[in-house]
Amino acid sequence: MFYVIGLGLCDEKDITVRGLEAVRKCSRIYLEAYTSILLVDKEKLESFYGKPIITAYRETVETESDEILHNAKEEDVALLVVGDPFGWVIKVTGLARELGIPTTVIHNASIMNAVGWCDEWGGYSHLTGQTVSLPFYTDSWKPDSWYDRVVENVEKGMHTLVLLDIKVREQSEENMARGRKIYEPPRYMSPVTAVSQILESEAIRAASASSEETKAHGYLKPESTLAIALSRVGSPEKQRVVCGTLQQLSELTEEDFGEPLFSVVIVGRRLHELEVQYSAAWALDKAEWTRVAKESGYNGRLSCDGLKSVPCGAMLDPDR
Amino acid sequence: MFYVIGLGLCDEKDITVRGLEAVRKCSRIYLEAYTSILLVDKEKLESFYGKPIITAYRETVETESDEILHNAKEEDVALLVVGDPFGWVIKVTGLARELGIPTTVIHNASIMNAVGWCDEWGGYSHLTGQTVSLPFYTDSWKPDSWYDRVVENVEKGMHTLVLLDIKVREQSEENMARGRKIYEPPRYMSPVTAVSQILESEAIRAASASSEETKAHGYLKPESTLAIALSRVGSPEKQRVVCGTLQQLSELTEEDFGEPLFSVVIVGRRLHELEVQYSAAWALDKAEWTRVAKESGYNGRLSCDGLKSVPCGAMLDPDR
Repeated sequence: MFYVIGLGLCDEKDITVRGLEAVRKCSRIYLEAYTSILLVDKEKLESFYGKPIITAYRETVETESDEILHNAKEEDVALLVVGDPFGWVIKVTGLARELGIPTTVIHNASIMNAVGWCDEWGGYSHLTGQTVSLPFYTDSWKPDSWYDRVVENVEKGMHTLVLLDIKVREQSEENMARGRKIYEPPRYMSPVTAVSQILESEAIRAASASSEETKAHGYLKPESTLAIALSRVGSPEKQRVVCGTLQQLSELTEEDFGEPLFSVVIVGRRLHELEVQYSAAWALDKAEWTRVAKESGYNGRLSCDGLKSVPCGAMLDPDR
Repeated sequence: MFYVIGLGLCDEKDITVRGLEAVRKCSRIYLEAYTSILLVDKEKLESFYGKPIITAYRETVETESDEILHNAKEEDVALLVVGDPFGWVIKVTGLARELGIPTTVIHNASIMNAVGWCDEWGGYSHLTGQTVSLPFYTDSWKPDSWYDRVVENVEKGMHTLVLLDIKVREQSEENMARGRKIYEPPRYMSPVTAVSQILESEAIRAASASSEETKAHGYLKPESTLAIALSRVGSPEKQRVVCGTLQQLSELTEEDFGEPLFSVVIVGRRLHELEVQYSAAWALDKAEWTRVAKESGYNGRLSCDGLKSVPCGAMLDPDR
């Protein structure tokens, strides 16, 4: 059996009981270590499982799927993935399917649902549109196609979950040129960088907009766009939420946001009054948060508009 | 400490190790049993935890929060929620906050991320817009405000996760009139009912549309709208996926869809070719699924449009 097992968001204890039982009977265990990280070392996982773990970088998982799947019809093999394993595993599960290897996916929390706790209400999850990934910009490479997706969400009043880039296998130009497999220390994009890049792209896009109004105001005006920076979501001790306008967030330093990994939510206008209230508890400036929310029409429509005639039970609980 | 603990999607073993440790040290354990259900009985949970469980219906959780939170500054108390606890718990966690009771939320998988596995690629999760809940229609009550949200998603090419109503504390009119607290057997909306209701609302909305084109074609035309019915997501043995047009799905019987709980995904047009291919494995008619996907422009845009210049690792993995 080939198991693809979500580890959840934080540490060794976020695996499910079902997942742990599966891991403990596997003869080979691979840990995907490119697209995300847990907040604990591999060694801690190994001692918790009582089993050695093989680190699998993305390229291994994609190019050496054969190795991972070797003999998996006869043996139990696990691929561990941080969060929920619904992401990028298509190639290896696809290959398993072609080879007739039975595969079990064991789900877990991911930032895409856990983000809901920032209002304790679930509105952020229900009303989140497309999720985007924000890559590290360089002097010459500032890919901003994520911006179009955000605008689509904004136009419909939806929130956007912005996933921030991480670099865990980066080579210096020199090392790459010389073909030396020496990697730089890992880098995790902070909300400081994220907000700065968002505002940079906003300025470029607004300047080149076709409509005069957008040119003047843009879509993500710093003073009137609300955003939420999240760090270490799911860690009871370390998770942190910071709410403010993009302008306010842009004035903070890295220390203000806690420890990686980070995400940012760009708040859509279809926010429920309860959400405004709840998020205000983490606002840099509670009065300003509420004022902007009201002035920008954040309260203009209820977020449960589309759900208001649904029985309460069905309305608020997405966990079916 | 007040713990709000997600149980995941299926059975007693979907709780996380962190969650299980918390439950086992609690002196009172409440299980929310209104908005969703696990696939196992309370008794099975009790024997797994080695602790008695108090069933808490939604009204208890909302109106008797005092009882749940009683003495929770001194004792450990747990509220167990199927899926991830980000949903409707605002009132009780809000009250805990007001009372100064420390609260820990322990996350888990919910249908909102697990739905990603229906393409094993994560596209469905990334590109899902607002989530809607579909209530049971009656002869006189057919609330269709969910339709507006679906149209907003459709217009932007996004998928819609449709959560199907459940009724677990329903009283007959007679019992209600007589004030007898006798409840009908639980009912879980099947994809048969869901698709029928969706097409019913589509016909009504199309007929009253302001544009001639929408009047003629509607937004959710049965023959050219792709949908995916999911059952028991997260259960390695019992999960089932059925893909087809709304028309094809409407011709099936309840038996074709497996066992509750169910969800339905209305597929947006911004579908990646890989998604079309993958989902085709569960299609009622593979050729027809692929043909409709192509003809309807499902392949017209890549689902990773907004992400295409992002490094692969960041692109596909939402689990940060």
